[in-house]
Amino acid sequence: MAQFPPGFQDALRDLMRWRRDVRRFRTEPVDEALLTHCLNTFMLSPSVGLSEPWRILRLTSAAARSAALANFKAANADAIAGYDGQQAQNYSRIKLSGMREAPVQLAVFCDESTTKGAGLGAATMAETRRYSVVCAITQFWLAARAEGLGVGWVSILDPERLKRDLDAPQEWRLVAYLCVGWPEEDSLTPELETVGWETRSMTLPIEER
Amino acid sequence: MAQFPPGFQDALRDLMRWRRDVRRFRTEPVDEALLTHCLNTFMLSPSVGLSEPWRILRLTSAAARSAALANFKAANADAIAGYDGQQAQNYSRIKLSGMREAPVQLAVFCDESTTKGAGLGAATMAETRRYSVVCAITQFWLAARAEGLGVGWVSILDPERLKRDLDAPQEWRLVAYLCVGWPEEDSLTPELETVGWETRSMTLPIEER
Repeated sequence: MAQFPPGFQDALRDLMRWRRDVRRFRTEPVDEALLTHCLNTFMLSPSVGLSEPWRILRLTSAAARSAALANFKAANADAIAGYDGQQAQNYSRIKLSGMREAPVQLAVFCDESTTKGAGLGAATMAETRRYSVVCAITQFWLAARAEGLGVGWVSILDPERLKRDLDAPQEWRLVAYLCVGWPEEDSLTPELETVGWETRSMTLPIEER
Repeated sequence: MAQFPPGFQDALRDLMRWRRDVRRFRTEPVDEALLTHCLNTFMLSPSVGLSEPWRILRLTSAAARSAALANFKAANADAIAGYDGQQAQNYSRIKLSGMREAPVQLAVFCDESTTKGAGLGAATMAETRRYSVVCAITQFWLAARAEGLGVGWVSILDPERLKRDLDAPQEWRLVAYLCVGWPEEDSLTPELETVGWETRSMTLPIEER
């Protein structure tokens, strides 16, 4: 039977409060053993039909990193163009990625063609394979934060362009681009709240049927 | 600065090992305050642009529950028909949902039409809204397990039929159907591994670029 130390539940809640999407990293490297230890939580994650469809490409070369950064810049310029006036100004003030500084950068994919699990659970909702990858990312995010590391999820990217630039298999689908490193500072408040872009809700939308 | 008690990181790892997809529930009710406490972790979850797109319908009426169960039965019969011989026999032996027994059942949706967050981060990858809901589900799953509760994710359902039966808004998209309750037993081994359907991988697929 699962037994947890006294105070564990409260500390877990604190971890969720401290998690945050980090975009401001110190440039010092992350110890490889610590990174591997955190990444190993992927293998403790639920996956539909035990399909374990996660695939990771780690961007270490200058060529791969600059292609990803150029991809982000182009997508972000397009995004700014979608806002007007004050909102466009506000948007341009927000730091939305730590891709210049983060020592570890990971493109996380779902292998849509995996035969592992023999399709169990994915016939009606094939997207659950991608959701399995998101579960694994969430666990990694929490595990990394528990060690003091920060993780930032960049979604302002053209996924197909990134796949081409990284020479990823055609059947893979980009789920997330993760920046990982030691955060410049810890915070309990999302950056989007700090800059006044959006506020957190204090109630959960739940109804009965 | 985030501070965690001694041994917290190891206990978090244990929690991830104990998490499991639970399909065998005791029928006794779950204390409402405890359930709310666990569900409140949704509001500590990351969401793209702080869009907080999660919407929950809790199935309490006999009509809603029997509609969901009939939906699962039909989808599961279709799924069995997709397998041959030994694999079909194996499939039919696996208990894939606790929908008959679980005292708490939640349909978790993503509101694809929310204007919260003003689209930030979702222009290039709109699916990140749904991924935000998956992050929240993962946190809830862990928080519930830390209290000894079990959670099972049912994906063998026709999402559009469920939406109609629950009178959910057209713009919502089903992300997960969750069964919640006290597990019959705790286990470190996924049921799919126990019955020989699939085995867990011991290595993480990661390459450099």
